[in-house]
Amino acid sequence: MSNTQVQVLPLLEDEPVAPCCPPLTERPFTAEEAETAARMFKALGDPVRVRLFSAIASHERGEACVCDISDVGVSQPTVSHHLKKLKEAGLLTSERRGTWVYYRVEPSVLAAMGKLIALPAAA
Amino acid sequence: MSNTQVQVLPLLEDEPVAPCCPPLTERPFTAEEAETAARMFKALGDPVRVRLFSAIASHERGEACVCDISDVGVSQPTVSHHLKKLKEAGLLTSERRGTWVYYRVEPSVLAAMGKLIALPAAA
Repeated sequence: MSNTQVQVLPLLEDEPVAPCCPPLTERPFTAEEAETAARMFKALGDPVRVRLFSAIASHERGEACVCDISDVGVSQPTVSHHLKKLKEAGLLTSERRGTWVYYRVEPSVLAAMGKLIALPAAA
Repeated sequence: MSNTQVQVLPLLEDEPVAPCCPPLTERPFTAEEAETAARMFKALGDPVRVRLFSAIASHERGEACVCDISDVGVSQPTVSHHLKKLKEAGLLTSERRGTWVYYRVEPSVLAAMGKLIALPAAA
């Protein structure tokens, strides 16, 4: 890690919504739980965001520079817009290191999503 | 199960989109995989649909009559609209038995969603 003037920014700059909620199969969700889960699902309800999310999640250490993940067939401003949406939904965190911003999928987020989807037997 | 004139309708009347795709953490999704996954996520990107889906998924045998799941704070036509969206995304199937339509979450759909979200270690 380079020794830049900005070393560790707060990981969640926007209000995070994940983790949340019991498994979808456990009991009917309350209105509040549904709001939270829907916000997370909605963030992934766009093909470009799914591609960005999978590109970051599958990158080394679940972390990628924006320079690593721009190959999704849309312009750089559009990439930035979608990354912002994913951050707002709490699915990504970001950290500036020198020139670049690095995006990361927190394991806790994947764990929370996995819990949400868990089959009854695994719940 | 009552012996009505309509016993088993085709389970998927609309083109299903799930199951699909490797884990999000495995490799960057292709455009086609991202389209499929995004359609599934988008279907759950609405609080009312999350509530309906969890009400059905958590109901006995993962199946519920529309009469069982209408307590989500919206009108019956709105419930029907959202159930249709969930069916179109392949997340629910439906079957008419006599007067009532029964909605069901197929275990294969939950399994596919679980695979999508799987953590690297569990993939």
